[in-house]
Amino acid sequence: MKSTRKEHDFLGELEIPNEKYYGVQTLRAKMNFNITGITLNNEKGLIKALAQVKKAAALANKDCHVLEPKIADAICFACDKVIEGKFDDEFVSDLIQGGAGTSVNMNANEVIANIALEYLGHEKGDYKYVHPNNHVNCSQSTNDAYPTAVRLALYYKLETFCKILTRLGEAFAAKGEEFEDVLKMGRTQLQDAVPMTLGQEFQGFATTIAEDVQRLHEAQKLLLEVNMGATAIGTKVNAPEGYPELCVRYLAEETGLPLQLSPDLIEATSDTGSFVLVMGTLKRTAVKLSKICNDLRLLSSGPRTGLNEINLPPCQPGSSIMPGKVNPVIPEVVNQTCFYVIGQDMTVTMASEAGQLQLNVMEPVIGFALFTSLEYLGNSITTLIDKCVVGITANKEHCAKLVMNSIGIVTQLNPILGYETCASIAGEALLSGKNVHQIVVNERKLITQDKWDEIYAMENLIHPKLIVS
Amino acid sequence: MKSTRKEHDFLGELEIPNEKYYGVQTLRAKMNFNITGITLNNEKGLIKALAQVKKAAALANKDCHVLEPKIADAICFACDKVIEGKFDDEFVSDLIQGGAGTSVNMNANEVIANIALEYLGHEKGDYKYVHPNNHVNCSQSTNDAYPTAVRLALYYKLETFCKILTRLGEAFAAKGEEFEDVLKMGRTQLQDAVPMTLGQEFQGFATTIAEDVQRLHEAQKLLLEVNMGATAIGTKVNAPEGYPELCVRYLAEETGLPLQLSPDLIEATSDTGSFVLVMGTLKRTAVKLSKICNDLRLLSSGPRTGLNEINLPPCQPGSSIMPGKVNPVIPEVVNQTCFYVIGQDMTVTMASEAGQLQLNVMEPVIGFALFTSLEYLGNSITTLIDKCVVGITANKEHCAKLVMNSIGIVTQLNPILGYETCASIAGEALLSGKNVHQIVVNERKLITQDKWDEIYAMENLIHPKLIVS
Amino acid sequence: MKSTRKEHDFLGELEIPNEKYYGVQTLRAKMNFNITGITLNNEKGLIKALAQVKKAAALANKDCHVLEPKIADAICFACDKVIEGKFDDEFVSDLIQGGAGTSVNMNANEVIANIALEYLGHEKGDYKYVHPNNHVNCSQSTNDAYPTAVRLALYYKLETFCKILTRLGEAFAAKGEEFEDVLKMGRTQLQDAVPMTLGQEFQGFATTIAEDVQRLHEAQKLLLEVNMGATAIGTKVNAPEGYPELCVRYLAEETGLPLQLSPDLIEATSDTGSFVLVMGTLKRTAVKLSKICNDLRLLSSGPRTGLNEINLPPCQPGSSIMPGKVNPVIPEVVNQTCFYVIGQDMTVTMASEAGQLQLNVMEPVIGFALFTSLEYLGNSITTLIDKCVVGITANKEHCAKLVMNSIGIVTQLNPILGYETCASIAGEALLSGKNVHQIVVNERKLITQDKWDEIYAMENLIHPKLIVS
Amino acid sequence: MKSTRKEHDFLGELEIPNEKYYGVQTLRAKMNFNITGITLNNEKGLIKALAQVKKAAALANKDCHVLEPKIADAICFACDKVIEGKFDDEFVSDLIQGGAGTSVNMNANEVIANIALEYLGHEKGDYKYVHPNNHVNCSQSTNDAYPTAVRLALYYKLETFCKILTRLGEAFAAKGEEFEDVLKMGRTQLQDAVPMTLGQEFQGFATTIAEDVQRLHEAQKLLLEVNMGATAIGTKVNAPEGYPELCVRYLAEETGLPLQLSPDLIEATSDTGSFVLVMGTLKRTAVKLSKICNDLRLLSSGPRTGLNEINLPPCQPGSSIMPGKVNPVIPEVVNQTCFYVIGQDMTVTMASEAGQLQLNVMEPVIGFALFTSLEYLGNSITTLIDKCVVGITANKEHCAKLVMNSIGIVTQLNPILGYETCASIAGEALLSGKNVHQIVVNERKLITQDKWDEIYAMENLIHPKLIVS
Repeated sequence: MKSTRKEHDFLGELEIPNEKYYGVQTLRAKMNFNITGITLNNEKGLIKALAQVKKAAALANKDCHVLEPKIADAICFACDKVIEGKFDDEFVSDLIQGGAGTSVNMNANEVIANIALEYLGHEKGDYKYVHPNNHVNCSQSTNDAYPTAVRLALYYKLETFCKILTRLGEAFAAKGEEFEDVLKMGRTQLQDAVPMTLGQEFQGFATTIAEDVQRLHEAQKLLLEVNMGATAIGTKVNAPEGYPELCVRYLAEETGLPLQLSPDLIEATSDTGSFVLVMGTLKRTAVKLSKICNDLRLLSSGPRTGLNEINLPPCQPGSSIMPGKVNPVIPEVVNQTCFYVIGQDMTVTMASEAGQLQLNVMEPVIGFALFTSLEYLGNSITTLIDKCVVGITANKEHCAKLVMNSIGIVTQLNPILGYETCASIAGEALLSGKNVHQIVVNERKLITQDKWDEIYAMENLIHPKLIVS
Repeated sequence: MKSTRKEHDFLGELEIPNEKYYGVQTLRAKMNFNITGITLNNEKGLIKALAQVKKAAALANKDCHVLEPKIADAICFACDKVIEGKFDDEFVSDLIQGGAGTSVNMNANEVIANIALEYLGHEKGDYKYVHPNNHVNCSQSTNDAYPTAVRLALYYKLETFCKILTRLGEAFAAKGEEFEDVLKMGRTQLQDAVPMTLGQEFQGFATTIAEDVQRLHEAQKLLLEVNMGATAIGTKVNAPEGYPELCVRYLAEETGLPLQLSPDLIEATSDTGSFVLVMGTLKRTAVKLSKICNDLRLLSSGPRTGLNEINLPPCQPGSSIMPGKVNPVIPEVVNQTCFYVIGQDMTVTMASEAGQLQLNVMEPVIGFALFTSLEYLGNSITTLIDKCVVGITANKEHCAKLVMNSIGIVTQLNPILGYETCASIAGEALLSGKNVHQIVVNERKLITQDKWDEIYAMENLIHPKLIVS
Repeated sequence: MKSTRKEHDFLGELEIPNEKYYGVQTLRAKMNFNITGITLNNEKGLIKALAQVKKAAALANKDCHVLEPKIADAICFACDKVIEGKFDDEFVSDLIQGGAGTSVNMNANEVIANIALEYLGHEKGDYKYVHPNNHVNCSQSTNDAYPTAVRLALYYKLETFCKILTRLGEAFAAKGEEFEDVLKMGRTQLQDAVPMTLGQEFQGFATTIAEDVQRLHEAQKLLLEVNMGATAIGTKVNAPEGYPELCVRYLAEETGLPLQLSPDLIEATSDTGSFVLVMGTLKRTAVKLSKICNDLRLLSSGPRTGLNEINLPPCQPGSSIMPGKVNPVIPEVVNQTCFYVIGQDMTVTMASEAGQLQLNVMEPVIGFALFTSLEYLGNSITTLIDKCVVGITANKEHCAKLVMNSIGIVTQLNPILGYETCASIAGEALLSGKNVHQIVVNERKLITQDKWDEIYAMENLIHPKLIVS
Repeated sequence: MKSTRKEHDFLGELEIPNEKYYGVQTLRAKMNFNITGITLNNEKGLIKALAQVKKAAALANKDCHVLEPKIADAICFACDKVIEGKFDDEFVSDLIQGGAGTSVNMNANEVIANIALEYLGHEKGDYKYVHPNNHVNCSQSTNDAYPTAVRLALYYKLETFCKILTRLGEAFAAKGEEFEDVLKMGRTQLQDAVPMTLGQEFQGFATTIAEDVQRLHEAQKLLLEVNMGATAIGTKVNAPEGYPELCVRYLAEETGLPLQLSPDLIEATSDTGSFVLVMGTLKRTAVKLSKICNDLRLLSSGPRTGLNEINLPPCQPGSSIMPGKVNPVIPEVVNQTCFYVIGQDMTVTMASEAGQLQLNVMEPVIGFALFTSLEYLGNSITTLIDKCVVGITANKEHCAKLVMNSIGIVTQLNPILGYETCASIAGEALLSGKNVHQIVVNERKLITQDKWDEIYAMENLIHPKLIVS
């Protein structure tokens, strides 16, 4: 038996290894696009989504009588196998390719056709029985099938990502509780401000992360609007009456998601606005995460010549030359991943702006940017939780000492002594090196020790009550 | 009478021209920050919002008994005058400044204090009666008053912007109707695809713009959460019990907006997430607008060697050397403004990431980016509507001729003849220069003239029905 | 006498106020483009450059006998007046406009024509004697005259900018000398590393800035290649034989710059590569400046709970609520301006990518981005020098104390004790709170006090010699 | 025999599979950083460069008598093996990691130590004979060894990239010659301008690409300045006298490159300016390539309803639904890769700005961005050359027809008839649909047929001579 089969398209004939389920157009894509080396089968969710789309289309086509039940059923069987992950290795296109996703769509069409052929007792490549274009792609175009699959795959990936992000928020909240009685100095513009607790600081991280989970979920919803039935450019050419609605209904059933048909299929076919907003929202998360990691690195700076308020769990020796040095390597890797994500937002922006007329041909790189950003950032957050946040400890005494030695605590005396007197106390403290207590209570005798104790009681520093006299 | 008065702060004394309502700290800001030449009084909405914040604070302070009624009332009087726009020229700080907005907040505090002083029969600068810090800024910090005012000002400006954008959507929709029977070729990847109408194309623009109005309104809502009462870092230090809620309630009344107090004031004080998302959403609008303007320029390319499907109203001679040349200058200026906005999104991203610990000191440049982006983009959209979209005309006959001469219309025969036969027809047409009708009906006789007429009837081209045999 | 005159172009007739030297096309531009409110006359250098271009063209045209000497001389007279700055107010186009600079070129053509007309004893608008297109624009197109003028204007502006930047480098170098004996702890990854001097740190700033002056000068040279004579698209259509070389020679004389004619005029006419590289290099400067300002803010953090190694001169009270607080407002405003510049690099990138076929129509926004970036960043650097760097002082004793109390100094013992022993010393120091001297000399007695003194002598800490036993 | 060995660092002990040459710190990195899945061994050039650095250091250390000759020789032997590519699989760190490259440096130190150990007849892990830190890393820190290796690796990769880019320029130049007599319409602002040849257009692509090769070579030179001997922060702590110069000299010999020691090692150790400029220059290339690919797609648009001036070689069927459709898939994939590169420039910008004090800890992501950008863009350019540019053909007759039917050719009559008359001819042509010849010669009889033939001779259209009467 020959080890290859011949397949042709309108550009000619190619030999395909017999064991392969993909066909001639996939092979062309493989030959045409060697760009990143990161192939489709890195995104299992996209493969699954493609098969779900093909299955929903087959079911709708059967109902519309444009696909024989026998063929439709074979296609559905094949889709189920792909959904199960049995054929991931057959998806070989580079994630960045030309052709607006045609190679990806054809890769799915060909693999599914060949699985269906074997299921029906035919040989691979015997496309008269089940044809990649005429049957598997029936009533579809790349321009509806591909973006719909990308949307689904992103939806799934965001789902996972939001779970990871939620876990980070919870880890911060747990630390917020743990540190609720660690008094420390708040800082604005890197200058000593007024007291707070380390717990409040970590609870702030938790709050800001939790908000982003919400924002991502909102953006995620935009992905639920799909354009199945639009076919080539949104005019539904070659799709039977009623098919778009049916297909979306089957797809909603198959995925369990409340999918909706775009009300303007022309617009929907070229529009990439939802990708821009999802990426923009993910960038917002990256911006916040980067700020938090900057803070973690600042707060743990030292151990002797920095702020030294917290300790990050040591993960590896920090230096090949400086013994005993431990560096904040986990926040550092998160910062870097955030910069990657922010860069990819720019990639999505340019790709989206480059859409022309009835299609945006740059969708593959948009997908690449979103998939890799979610993957890398998700990985780095998991690392941040498990190898850093949960093990953070506080230097409680050092923190408290910094507060009472600060000048910033004079702010609490504003309501009693007025802004200008307090400014003069601050000035004296700065020049003389004295602390506020000494000047106010011992030297200038502006308030009594009792009043001092009332104002600077731990509870009042953490949850200040206005004391005006 | 002397033409200047002396004012001092803890850095020393400066002379202020007597007619000026601003004081020593504003003067310092004026001396310190000569960066862009674009000053606060370019943003009337921000001045108004600052005064609204100060008024709400005064009312809440009065209720909390930390401000004498007489002083509070004088402050309210002064705020009303500022809200009326009577003192815009007193707001002189450069929009980009250091100090996290302190200069802007103090500018407002000083101007309001001096108006209030005169109202009470005192002289400007006689701050023992009404003090910029002790009274006008009572229970506040720059770190709550300034971002709250920026949020309000942005809210107002987005309101105006969304109206302009809505009007653009409507202008496109009107053209969509006007062009509903202009048959034209759809194009994907700049290659001939299948027929559609010019009306569908313009309706698509309308749809995509209308979606962005929705997205902007959603993002706008994030601006309604404010942190009044947070004071320095979110611990409410020096704010009386109950003040935060009261202040926000008064501010909601004064502005007529459903404002809400941030649930986590520590987080809210350093967080700039809402700015990132508003800017990101505005960037999405810029991306879409730029794509649309690219399309308008493509569709109007020619007149003889381009697509020439539409005509943009001529606005000015297009060339200093080529007679009679008319260029698409309005879409061009919109494209450029969009690039400005996209650049400013990067500015906001970096500024937001640069927040440290309990504050983001980069808020002024965030404000600058958002204010100028909304201003410039709003202006350019107004121009686009009035000087371009409303006057666009269609070259109906030329559009139709292109369709019937195209090879792409073979797609309609797919369901009858199958993908491969159609591909061979397309191939022959391309090589021979013949049109599809000639090959299909006259030469290969694959379908009858009647069937052809049914399939290629205008109505069926615009709203294709699947015809399978 | 009537207060207006009528002018027409091929779109019709408009009334121009009689005192205005600009004409109908400038007026159209004024009506068409109300985008930023920042007009041409904000860029004096561009106005000057436009007049220099027009003068060089007139001289070359005269030599080529395509312009009567009398007309050419009148044009030269007019150009000189414009170069002197006498007509700046006549340049009214918005800096961001459609039309690829045609409005700017025509503004110059019209103003110069009318000055020339009056010089010749005619009335403004009597263009049969001196015509904006036929005479002032003779042998030119917007597509050569405008980019050439923009290049010259940028060259001038970079010249000024590099002087400012050089001054910053010198200010840092002066501090480098001043602080050469201030021993301090070096930090990597915000963790204590090994000793250095504050002088070395500031000298490092000086070095890095000086390098950027070099890089900017290299990029600046790319602006000296111009495309005069290319006319519409680079084919030199309508330019007389020999004119391109002559024109560039005259322009070189007029400007005193070693200008060169582009070897490939077709390429040169659509290419914006030099703008991309100039902007990219300026971005590099912004990146470095931002890093330096971040460092200045970190090093001056405190005064009690931060690093507190240096003091920045106080410029204004730092807080409306916290008395005596002084913030690093000058570095802060520089950071923000850097973010603006970085954003504008993105704007230039997108605008440059959007060039199509024989022209890049987005040059106006490229100019806008470059002009405003140079202006704002130049202003902020001047501020940084005069209001911050020159007044920085060091907290010498505090710096030294931090060094000797650090664990990082154990690194110096590596060559004697080996990496692993040193790591164990570091570990003990960290856990026990002891300092390195105590453990090494007093407790473990690993080296003698004399050896310690040799290794940790000031001179050896600053310029370490390897001491291996 | 046991299949694992135990290794420890100051954080504890781990088991290493016995066959592995890497050690405990590499294993920690592997466990700590699972971010991108793209590991060090994807960058063979970096592995080679690391070994070259280690070898040069060993040789310099031997000369300085801080490394026994026997150990130094064993290290050199090991480095040579690594340089030969024999141990690539031992380099397992994720390309994005925290720790500023410490993991990469230690990976090299450990692998080289173990190869050397075996060479000397010891067992892997028996570090008392050859120690990763004390011997392989002798006189080095991650902070000099790692950035030096990254610079070298980038230099190598740019070398390859520039060769590919040069080949693209040559491919365009060949087409420039091939198409030198294909007359076509030039277009500015997408509107018909004046005639040119397709050869000039392709030669323009060649010119612009060739310029970028030059710019990249200039930027590449910045990578030749290295900071070996700086050790931890640039003070040369623990490096013997004379070592830095010696080490750089050995490294120059080993690599054959004219390397230079940075004059300011403090500055050099934290500076990433050269990466910013290399990336910025590569971005410029991406911007230009993207513009060129946009043009190729525009010029090949059609086949019937677009410009249709050129044909790109078909690479794959273009549509799953539209038979016979062929899309410009190769330029499309190049555009997308360019967007990736432009995004990575933003990543580098942010990472570079995030440097703090004596080090930039974000160098790994800077390396990631540069390595992947060069790789992907290089791949896509190779594809562009081989699968697109070399096979482009011209539709010569169609191009010529467009020219003679255009209105833009009236520009040639400007010098004879004046701008205003020509504008009126253009206006009539536009309204009536007539061509310029008919109006000028037949109807208005403004010039004779002979004059027409002279002006519109092919040679004069391509290389216009000014004809004034």
